[in-house]
Amino acid sequence: MGSRAGIVVTGTEVLTGRVGDRNGPWLAEQLRVAGVDVANVIVVGDRPDDLRAALDFLARSGVDLIITSGGLGPTADDLTAEIVAGFQGRPGALDAALEQQIAGIVARLSAGRGWRVDPEATAAATRKQALVPAGAGVLAPVGTAPGLVVPAPDDRPGPPVVVLPGPPGELRPMWPHALAHPAVVVALADREELHQRTIRLWGTPESELAATLRAHDAELAGLEITTCLRDGELEIVTRFGPAAQAAYDGFEATIADEYAATLLSTDGRTIDQLVTDTLRERGLTIATAESCTSGLLAARLTDRPGSSAWLLAGLATYSNAAKTELLGVPADLIARVGAVSEEVAIAMAEGARSRVGSDVAVGITGIAGPDGGTPDKPVGLVHFCAVGPDRRIARKLRIPGSRDDVRKRATTQALHLVRAVLTD
Amino acid sequence: MGSRAGIVVTGTEVLTGRVGDRNGPWLAEQLRVAGVDVANVIVVGDRPDDLRAALDFLARSGVDLIITSGGLGPTADDLTAEIVAGFQGRPGALDAALEQQIAGIVARLSAGRGWRVDPEATAAATRKQALVPAGAGVLAPVGTAPGLVVPAPDDRPGPPVVVLPGPPGELRPMWPHALAHPAVVVALADREELHQRTIRLWGTPESELAATLRAHDAELAGLEITTCLRDGELEIVTRFGPAAQAAYDGFEATIADEYAATLLSTDGRTIDQLVTDTLRERGLTIATAESCTSGLLAARLTDRPGSSAWLLAGLATYSNAAKTELLGVPADLIARVGAVSEEVAIAMAEGARSRVGSDVAVGITGIAGPDGGTPDKPVGLVHFCAVGPDRRIARKLRIPGSRDDVRKRATTQALHLVRAVLTD
Repeated sequence: MGSRAGIVVTGTEVLTGRVGDRNGPWLAEQLRVAGVDVANVIVVGDRPDDLRAALDFLARSGVDLIITSGGLGPTADDLTAEIVAGFQGRPGALDAALEQQIAGIVARLSAGRGWRVDPEATAAATRKQALVPAGAGVLAPVGTAPGLVVPAPDDRPGPPVVVLPGPPGELRPMWPHALAHPAVVVALADREELHQRTIRLWGTPESELAATLRAHDAELAGLEITTCLRDGELEIVTRFGPAAQAAYDGFEATIADEYAATLLSTDGRTIDQLVTDTLRERGLTIATAESCTSGLLAARLTDRPGSSAWLLAGLATYSNAAKTELLGVPADLIARVGAVSEEVAIAMAEGARSRVGSDVAVGITGIAGPDGGTPDKPVGLVHFCAVGPDRRIARKLRIPGSRDDVRKRATTQALHLVRAVLTD
Repeated sequence: MGSRAGIVVTGTEVLTGRVGDRNGPWLAEQLRVAGVDVANVIVVGDRPDDLRAALDFLARSGVDLIITSGGLGPTADDLTAEIVAGFQGRPGALDAALEQQIAGIVARLSAGRGWRVDPEATAAATRKQALVPAGAGVLAPVGTAPGLVVPAPDDRPGPPVVVLPGPPGELRPMWPHALAHPAVVVALADREELHQRTIRLWGTPESELAATLRAHDAELAGLEITTCLRDGELEIVTRFGPAAQAAYDGFEATIADEYAATLLSTDGRTIDQLVTDTLRERGLTIATAESCTSGLLAARLTDRPGSSAWLLAGLATYSNAAKTELLGVPADLIARVGAVSEEVAIAMAEGARSRVGSDVAVGITGIAGPDGGTPDKPVGLVHFCAVGPDRRIARKLRIPGSRDDVRKRATTQALHLVRAVLTD
C-alpha cells in the first residue's frame, strides 16, 4: 500500500507569488526519498477558514500525515499553530521552559544584528511562539519558532499534523527531527522506498517521445514516467519500486538507443553539470564574455562548489566601449557590423580567451528586448561563439519570449555550445 | 460577498519541485487584480485520482470558478482535459476544425525548429489535443494546446472549470480570453476590485512591526495586512476595498513616521528598482567587480529594460590573477591580506571604476562555501565596497545559509550599499 502525505503551505505572500514556494517541492522530494507518496501541496493564504478547509480535505482524503509550513512567526497573521491545535482538538498552553529558550535565542539574534529591541513586543512574540497544543511534541527551534507534532484528537482517528516554520533555513534542519519523531514514525509505518531516475534529451520534440512510449507500452509496467519540456530540454523522470528495476533498465537502453543523437544524460546530470564536470575532468579553464546575458552565464558556471577550478573570469561587457577596452573588440568592427553580429561574438570570445588566458571562452551578444529590435535584428536575436582548445563554433538563434526568457534561454544555449566545443 | 476561485496546478514535475510553479502565483495575482479572491492553489501530480479529488474539494468548498494549468500536452501523462470532462460529466468529441488548426501550428513549429517529425506520432498527438468536452468553450491555442471552459453538468450546480496549458508562455496570453469568456463572466459576476499596496523596510525586526500593528489595531479596520521578512527586508502588503482608502493612508503615514530610519519604499519599489531608478535619474553609470557572487549583481542590474543606460560593465574576477590583470588589484596586496579582505574589496571597486570609467562601482569578495572557510575567515564572510561620486563605503558581513543563500544575500547587500553611497 505505502504511506501517503499531504502538504499545506501557508502564507498570503506565497499564495500571491510575492515569495516563491521553496518548501512544498522540497518537502515533497524529501518525502519521496523517504518512501512516502505525496498526494498534493496546497497553498493557502493567512486566513483561518482556508487553512482549516485544507486540513479537513487532507484528513478526509485519507493521508497518513499532514505537514504544514509557515505561519509560526510573531505577527498576528501567523496563525498556523493555533488553527492546527483547534483542528486536532488540543488547546495550547504556555510551555515555560520553551518560552525561556526562545527568549534566549531572540536576545542573541538581536544583539548579533545590532537591532534595537522593544522588550514588551519581544516578550509578547515569545509567549505566542511558546504555546504548545496539549499532547503535542515539540521540535527544537532553529530560528525562533519551534516546530510541533500534533496528534489527532483522542476520540477521532486521523493523521498527525507536523507544523514547521516557513523560512527554508529553519524548516530544512528541522525536517530530520520531524521524520524521526515517534508519532511520525508510527504514522508512516507503511513507507517503502522508490527509485527515481532522470534522462535528459536535447532537441527531441515531446510528441516523438510520446510515440516511443506508446510503442513500448507493454514493457513499461511498474514505471511511472513523467516528461517535461523546458527550454528545448526534454526531461524524462521515472519512478519505480525495486521490482521494476529490470523494466527501467530496458527502458533506459531503449531511449539511449533510439535518441542517441539527442541524448544529454541518463544519470540526471544537467547541462550545467555536464559542462563543469568536463572542464574539471579535463583540467580546462573557462572565461565568459557576455553582453545581453550580462553575468548570468558566469553566475551559473560558479553555482557549484569548487568552481574556482574552472572559471577564471567573466566579463559582462554591456557597453560597446567595454567590449573594446576589456575584450579588445575593434571599435571599427562594431561600427561596421553592429554589436549584435557573428563577428563581434567571435571577437568577444577570442578576446576573453586571450585577455584572461583561459583554455575555453564564450561570447554572447544579442537583443533581449523588449525594445531595441529592428527588422534586420529583431528582439530575441542572439549570436554565440565558443572557442576551445581544438575548435571554434559560432551560432545564431532567434529566441522567443520575454526579456527574462531570452536572457535565460541564451545562457542555456551558450552552455550547450560550450559542450559542443568540448566534445569530439 | 465577492467572487472566489480555486486553482489546480497539475504536473508531477511541479509537485516534486523539478519545475518551479510559475502559474499558480501568477494566476492568483491576475485574479486578485480582477477582484476575485483566491482560496488556494493546489498542486497535484499527474495522477487521475488526485486531480479528481482536488476538483471535488474546490467544487464542494463553494468557489465560483476553478482554473487548472498543465496536463494538455501530447504525452500519455497529460490527462487534465479528459479528467475535467469526466468530472463535469461532459464526454469529449473530436473537433475537426480544431484538429486542422493544431496540425497547421505543429507543422509550422517543426519546420521552424528544423525538427524531424514522425507524421503518425504527430497526428495522434494532434487528435488528442483536439478532443473537446460536450458543451465546452474552446480558447484558441497559443502553442499547440487549446484551452477549455467546461461548464458544470446540466443536472448539478457547480463552478465551471477553465483548463489552461502549463507553459507560462502559452497560459499568460490565453488568460484574458478565459476571463472574457461568457461562462466565466457569469461565474465571477460578484467580483469587486481590491487595492494592493506594498511598503518595504530594511533592518526592522518583524516583532517590532507586530507591536506597532497591535498598538494601532483599532485604526486598521478594513485592511488585510500581511508581512514577510526576506533577506533582511520586511515587506508589508496591504489589501483593501475602496471604502478603506483613508484607513490605508493613515496606516502608511504611521509606518513612514515610526520607521523613517528603515523605510525603503511606500510604493512597492524593490532595492533593485530604487538603485537603478536613482542611477538613471542622476545620469550615473556603474560597474561591478564580483568574486563570490560572480555575475549575479551584474545580472540583477540588467534585469530591467534600458539597463544599458547605467551598467557599463561587470567583471566577475573569480581567480586572483583575474583580480590583478582585469582590475589592477596588486598581487602583493592579495598575498599579504588575502583575497577576502576589506583592502581587496576596496581595490576591486576602485579598479573597476577606473578601468571601466564609470561613476559608481562595487567590489564584492567573500567565501560562499561550503568549503574554503577558516577560523579567521569563515564561510559566509563577505567584504563589500561601493564607491560613488561623493563617497566610498566599505562593509563586512557574516552571512548565514547555504552557498546559494550567501551568494544571493551578498548581491542584495551590495545593492543596499550602492543605495547608501548614492544617498545623502
